[in-house]
Amino acid sequence: MSSEVFRQEVAARSHAFVDPEQAADAAWPRFLERLQYLCQDVNDDAGYGALAQACRHGEIRVFYLATAPSLFTRICKGLKSANLIDDYSRVVLEKPLGHDLVSAQAINDEVARYFAERQIYRIDHYLGKETVQNLMVLRFGNSILEPLWRAPYIKGVQITVAETLGVGSRAAFYDGTGALRDMVQNHLLQLLCIVAMETPISLEPDDIRDEKLKVLRSLKRMTPEEVASNTVRGQYREGRVGGESVRAYRAEEGVPQTSDTETFVAIRAQINNPRWAGVPIFLRTGKRLQARRSEIVIEFARPPFSPFSDADAGSNLLVITLQPEESIRLQMLMKEPGSGMKRRPVSLDLDLHEAFTHRRAEAYERLLVDVTRSRLTHFMRRDELEAAWGWIDPIVNAWRQSGTHPRPYAAGSWGPAAA
Amino acid sequence: MSSEVFRQEVAARSHAFVDPEQAADAAWPRFLERLQYLCQDVNDDAGYGALAQACRHGEIRVFYLATAPSLFTRICKGLKSANLIDDYSRVVLEKPLGHDLVSAQAINDEVARYFAERQIYRIDHYLGKETVQNLMVLRFGNSILEPLWRAPYIKGVQITVAETLGVGSRAAFYDGTGALRDMVQNHLLQLLCIVAMETPISLEPDDIRDEKLKVLRSLKRMTPEEVASNTVRGQYREGRVGGESVRAYRAEEGVPQTSDTETFVAIRAQINNPRWAGVPIFLRTGKRLQARRSEIVIEFARPPFSPFSDADAGSNLLVITLQPEESIRLQMLMKEPGSGMKRRPVSLDLDLHEAFTHRRAEAYERLLVDVTRSRLTHFMRRDELEAAWGWIDPIVNAWRQSGTHPRPYAAGSWGPAAA
Repeated sequence: MSSEVFRQEVAARSHAFVDPEQAADAAWPRFLERLQYLCQDVNDDAGYGALAQACRHGEIRVFYLATAPSLFTRICKGLKSANLIDDYSRVVLEKPLGHDLVSAQAINDEVARYFAERQIYRIDHYLGKETVQNLMVLRFGNSILEPLWRAPYIKGVQITVAETLGVGSRAAFYDGTGALRDMVQNHLLQLLCIVAMETPISLEPDDIRDEKLKVLRSLKRMTPEEVASNTVRGQYREGRVGGESVRAYRAEEGVPQTSDTETFVAIRAQINNPRWAGVPIFLRTGKRLQARRSEIVIEFARPPFSPFSDADAGSNLLVITLQPEESIRLQMLMKEPGSGMKRRPVSLDLDLHEAFTHRRAEAYERLLVDVTRSRLTHFMRRDELEAAWGWIDPIVNAWRQSGTHPRPYAAGSWGPAAA
Repeated sequence: MSSEVFRQEVAARSHAFVDPEQAADAAWPRFLERLQYLCQDVNDDAGYGALAQACRHGEIRVFYLATAPSLFTRICKGLKSANLIDDYSRVVLEKPLGHDLVSAQAINDEVARYFAERQIYRIDHYLGKETVQNLMVLRFGNSILEPLWRAPYIKGVQITVAETLGVGSRAAFYDGTGALRDMVQNHLLQLLCIVAMETPISLEPDDIRDEKLKVLRSLKRMTPEEVASNTVRGQYREGRVGGESVRAYRAEEGVPQTSDTETFVAIRAQINNPRWAGVPIFLRTGKRLQARRSEIVIEFARPPFSPFSDADAGSNLLVITLQPEESIRLQMLMKEPGSGMKRRPVSLDLDLHEAFTHRRAEAYERLLVDVTRSRLTHFMRRDELEAAWGWIDPIVNAWRQSGTHPRPYAAGSWGPAAA
């Protein structure tokens, strides 16, 4: 399309997001005028020259590579040859960044030939969510949580990303990948880093990423025996989701009928450091589950002694929900009104939409602003990515060598019972 | 009045409290039939005989002495002579129970000649409030509060009972008493006991009261110098409360124009035990203040290190409101939405009326049921009462000997600035 058509598209689609007052501002048409549309073949050198002509020197240039990683080198090379890489340039990389440690290192090595690490933004939109960023404030900024955020006060951590969707049109990619590498290696481990990291020295990006890296490196690498007893993989069969009948994974378009790819995985992980030793960390994700729900649940241990006779009244929970709506809920125990001392769980809720009424930016919106402002905090550093793969690889290998298969689960359930 | 008229009165006045379903139950008229009305002079022996005739043997008898303590002995003697004191009997005593330790001991000694301690219910309606009883569940039943309920995690405790009313028709009594003895000695110290007590071995009344007693005995007795620097007393002058002009205390009916009685008191107290050493305890009560508000505020200390630059973003607070409406509020710090890591205080609220929808009993209602069921938990034991006076007396004496006067404060303000 022409730049003119592109600008019209952008203007039309922005209606829902730009409030009338802003749209009426003179800056809005000025912004639209700066948009250009350029369609080039990344394998054709001429395209990079055209791109260079469209760019002005001394302006911030963000190259967002929403391509297969196999094209990264070619693109970087083209950008370099057209003199498009300088101090104003930065590159955004989307997952998948490799399928194991070796391939991830290869991608990182290639991109590093063209961009310095401080110019590389490995994007994970979970890190752009308000509740995830809020988690650091919650943990380190609240004196009623900070001292308790460790063993023995925390009994367990659960991180769940449940989807109702099936593999959809991604079968070609997904069947060679599976839930562990598609979701756990990046999204769930990143959430775990924020939950489990030590207090950073400061909020500078590298101080935070140093602490996240330490979490990944502290994750206990599993032996094949430990993989067998601490992980459950599953694959959805036909079933009903949201009132509709859906196909089995193996019946999806593009999926081989004998596929052993996991569409569900649950892991009991362990972090070997003083803060977390002995606290089980449950990671769980799957497709075609009963509800779309991403949440982090911190379950606090019961007090060591209780004068109350209703020992099973419930636990204190901190529940951070990312999807479908972001919210924070603290479950406490209160006295059942009336005489006696019977306890009942009661939720203290924080609805973020109510508490903070102005429009909140979407995760990608926030992250893209971060890129333009050179804020690396919410992006993965190379060593983080590689450390995550270093923990994932032994699990993949153990599964492969075990001769076992994913357990079947009905679409619309909560996954295999074993989980 | 006749018993018949009395029953009609009770039936009519109960309308607002007995729900239609209950009122339609056959038990309701049966209950009303059991009510009798008897009007006798406590100084006349014949009255006790009439009372005995009205009572049936083997039924629970609660003698609620809503009289001046000077009549307690006479009444107990009369009950005894009419054989009304046995295992089914219990006596409820209302404040004031003495004006100092010696007079309190005398009252306790006298009543003890007729009733065993387990039959004596020293009533304080603050202990009948749902939120106050809930406080024990909150403290000991929640693992996110139990480990933090001590120095150095708590920075300070504030207990406030603020009234908008003046002395009203109680001048004759109040002017000889003052806020310290009328409010702090009983209500505020009882609330403090629940806030500060160690975990009781069980919920048995004496296990709880043993721990409350230890708090009162751990309160640091103040020297006259400490009284001068840790207490502020005030007396209201004329002013405006709730939009109306009100008189000064000294202009109230029945108050001497030269009265030095305090209508406001603020105390910085200290508890000498491992849990509370170094944590200031602020007790504050007064008449003719800006708003009617009774609350307990627990202010948690800031984390020892914060990576955030907004050091003054606020503290974690637990606010337990008893009046005008009972509620529990936890103030936490959340991230201000958007980029950056600015923090903002946000309240997680528990509205008891919403969380527990069925009608909740009033404090007196609950306490009277406790009396009939022989539940002593929420009543003061003799040694508690006397320990409270033991801490109050040195303050009264120091004020008296200091030659100073209460500081004036305008009605409708929050008391003397010095507080």
